[in-house]
Amino acid sequence: MNSANRVVTMAHGSGGRAMQQLIEEMFLTAFSNSFLNQREDQARMSLSELALQGDRLAFTTDSYVIDPIFFPGGDIGKLAVCGTANDLAVSGATPAFMSCGFILEEGFSLDTLQILVDSMANTARQYGIQIVTGDTKVVPRGAADKIFINTSGIGVIPQAVEWSAKNIAVGDKIIVSGTLGDHGAAILNLREKLDMQLDVSSDCAVLSDLIAPLRPLAGVHALRDATRGGVNAILHEYAAASGLGIEIDESSLPVKSAVRGICELLGLEPLNFANEGKLVIVTSADSAPHVLERLHQHPLGVDAACIGEVVSTAKILLRGSYGITRLLDLPYAEPLPRIC
Amino acid sequence: MNSANRVVTMAHGSGGRAMQQLIEEMFLTAFSNSFLNQREDQARMSLSELALQGDRLAFTTDSYVIDPIFFPGGDIGKLAVCGTANDLAVSGATPAFMSCGFILEEGFSLDTLQILVDSMANTARQYGIQIVTGDTKVVPRGAADKIFINTSGIGVIPQAVEWSAKNIAVGDKIIVSGTLGDHGAAILNLREKLDMQLDVSSDCAVLSDLIAPLRPLAGVHALRDATRGGVNAILHEYAAASGLGIEIDESSLPVKSAVRGICELLGLEPLNFANEGKLVIVTSADSAPHVLERLHQHPLGVDAACIGEVVSTAKILLRGSYGITRLLDLPYAEPLPRIC
Repeated sequence: MNSANRVVTMAHGSGGRAMQQLIEEMFLTAFSNSFLNQREDQARMSLSELALQGDRLAFTTDSYVIDPIFFPGGDIGKLAVCGTANDLAVSGATPAFMSCGFILEEGFSLDTLQILVDSMANTARQYGIQIVTGDTKVVPRGAADKIFINTSGIGVIPQAVEWSAKNIAVGDKIIVSGTLGDHGAAILNLREKLDMQLDVSSDCAVLSDLIAPLRPLAGVHALRDATRGGVNAILHEYAAASGLGIEIDESSLPVKSAVRGICELLGLEPLNFANEGKLVIVTSADSAPHVLERLHQHPLGVDAACIGEVVSTAKILLRGSYGITRLLDLPYAEPLPRIC
Repeated sequence: MNSANRVVTMAHGSGGRAMQQLIEEMFLTAFSNSFLNQREDQARMSLSELALQGDRLAFTTDSYVIDPIFFPGGDIGKLAVCGTANDLAVSGATPAFMSCGFILEEGFSLDTLQILVDSMANTARQYGIQIVTGDTKVVPRGAADKIFINTSGIGVIPQAVEWSAKNIAVGDKIIVSGTLGDHGAAILNLREKLDMQLDVSSDCAVLSDLIAPLRPLAGVHALRDATRGGVNAILHEYAAASGLGIEIDESSLPVKSAVRGICELLGLEPLNFANEGKLVIVTSADSAPHVLERLHQHPLGVDAACIGEVVSTAKILLRGSYGITRLLDLPYAEPLPRIC
C-alpha cells in the first residue's frame, strides 16, 4: 500500500502478503477490537456474557451494492453498518457484533476504500457495534462495479420483548418514525442527474437508540425498518404474516416537501420510496400515544406519525383526502435499482 | 419466474413482488427451516439451547466469487457452504446456522440459480446446517460477473476445546489432512483451458465430521483449513501468531501425481496452491500419532500426513530431498485469482 500504487490489485485478494498487508494496515487498524485482533478464522464470544443481555440471539445479513457509493447523508460503508444494525434492532436486540465481507474491483482506489472503512468503523463505534470478523475478495476490472459490502450481524434480544408480525391484531395502529422516502429521493436526484436543488439527504442511520425506549411498552406488536420497496413493502409483509389488512390515511403521511415534489414530478408514490432509517411500528391503539411520545423525544423520531390502522379485510387500502379509498398494490419492482 | 422469462431481472432485487416471488418459490422452498420460515428481518435462536452445545459462539464470514461457478468436485453454491462451515469447524465448533447473501447479475439464468441454491441446500442439510436468514441484490448487466455469494456462519465451541495459534510450541508436529492443491489444480486446469486430462477434482468438502473426533485429544494446539494461499499461508499465520518457525519436510508432502505434474509444468509450488477441504493441524509430538490415526479413519483424512515441525527460529523452512533447506516465503500474490 505504498503511495505509488494506491489502487486495489488482484494481489490484495489473494492469500499472499499483499492481502495480509491490506488487512493489517487498513482493516485491523480501523476496526480494532479484542475479537478481531485475535486473527483467528472466526470470532469467539462467551455465551454466558451474551446471556446477560437477553435470551435469544438475533442473526441477520445484507449485501450493499448501492450506486453511487457516496451520497448526501452517507456512503456505502455507513449504509452497510446502519442497514444490518437496523435489521437486528427491529427485533428488540441491541446490535453487538458484525462481520464484514468486501468484494472489490481491481483498480478501485485504496484511498476511497480507506474513507469507506473509516466510515464503517466510526458508525459502528458510535453505536457500540464491534466488527469482529471479515473477508476480502478482489475480482478483475469489470467483474464488479467498484465495491460491494456484505455485513452480517448478531445481537441479543432482551427477555419479554416479543415483537413479531404474527402479533398484529385488528384495530392496531400503524406508526412511522419519520418522513418517508428521503433515501430514495436523495439517490434518485443524484443518480438520474435530475440536478434538482433538493434539500434532501438520505436518512441512513442506526435506529437502536430510537427503538430501545419502546421495549418496556406493552402493546407494541411488530417493528420493521422500511428500506427497498418503502413502507408499502412492509405493509404488505405485515398483511401477509397476519392475514389481516391495513388502511392508510394518505393525509397523515409525513413527507418532506422536497420529496413530495420529486414524487409528483415523476409520478412516484412516497410510500414506495426507499428509506434507510425509518421504522414501521404496529402497536395497540392504547399504546399508540405512548409510542409516539417516546419516538418524538428522540432526534430521529421527531416526525413520527400515526398513518393508519389494521383492519379485518386482507387488503392494503389508501384513503385519500376526499375520503375515497383505493387499493395499494405492491409494485412488481422498485422504481430505482441499486438503492442499497 | 414463469418459463418465458427464466433470467434474473432488476425487479428480482427490488423490494417488490418479483423479489417476494423469488424468495418464496426458490429460497424458502430450498432452504426451508423453522427459523427462515418465520420471515422476520432476522433469525432468532434460543441462547439456552445454544449453551447446551458449549460455552462460546463462533462467528465467521466469507464471500465467494469463484470463476468458473461450476468445476469438477463442486460449484460456487457448495463452496459457499463448505468454506464458511470449515472456518467455524476449525475452532472446534459444530457449524449450526448460516446466512446467505446473493449478489446477482441481471440476465443470470434462473435455472442455474436454482441448481446453485439446491447445491447449497443439499450441502447444508447433509451437515445439519440451517440457512436461517438471507438477502438478494441484483445489479445491472456488467456490474457483477454472474453471481457472488456471501455466507456468514454461527456455531458453538464445546467447553474445553481451546484451539488457537497462540498455543503453538517448539517441537509440535504439523499435520495436513490430505493431498495438497487439488482445488487450485482443478480450477487452473479448467479456467486456463490447459485441457490436460487431469484426474483431479476440487477437494471442496465440509470438514466438521473429520474434525469432531479430534476434540477429546489433549495436545491438539491449533487447526486451520488451508484455502487461498495454500498451506504456505497457514504456516505463515501460525509462525506470526506464535513468534516461532516451522520446518517442512518436502518429501513428506502428500500431493497427487496429477497435481504434481501441473505444478512442475507451470513452475508452481503445491504448498501455495489453494485447497477447499484440507486441515493444517499443529499438535504436540505425543499426540501426533493419535491425530493421524483418527484422521486416517475418515474418508476425507486417508492421505493425512505429518509434514514438519515447529522450531524456535522464526522462519518457514523447506527441507528438500537432499537435506538442503531453503526459506519458504509467502508469495506477494496467489498464482490464481478468483479461486474461491
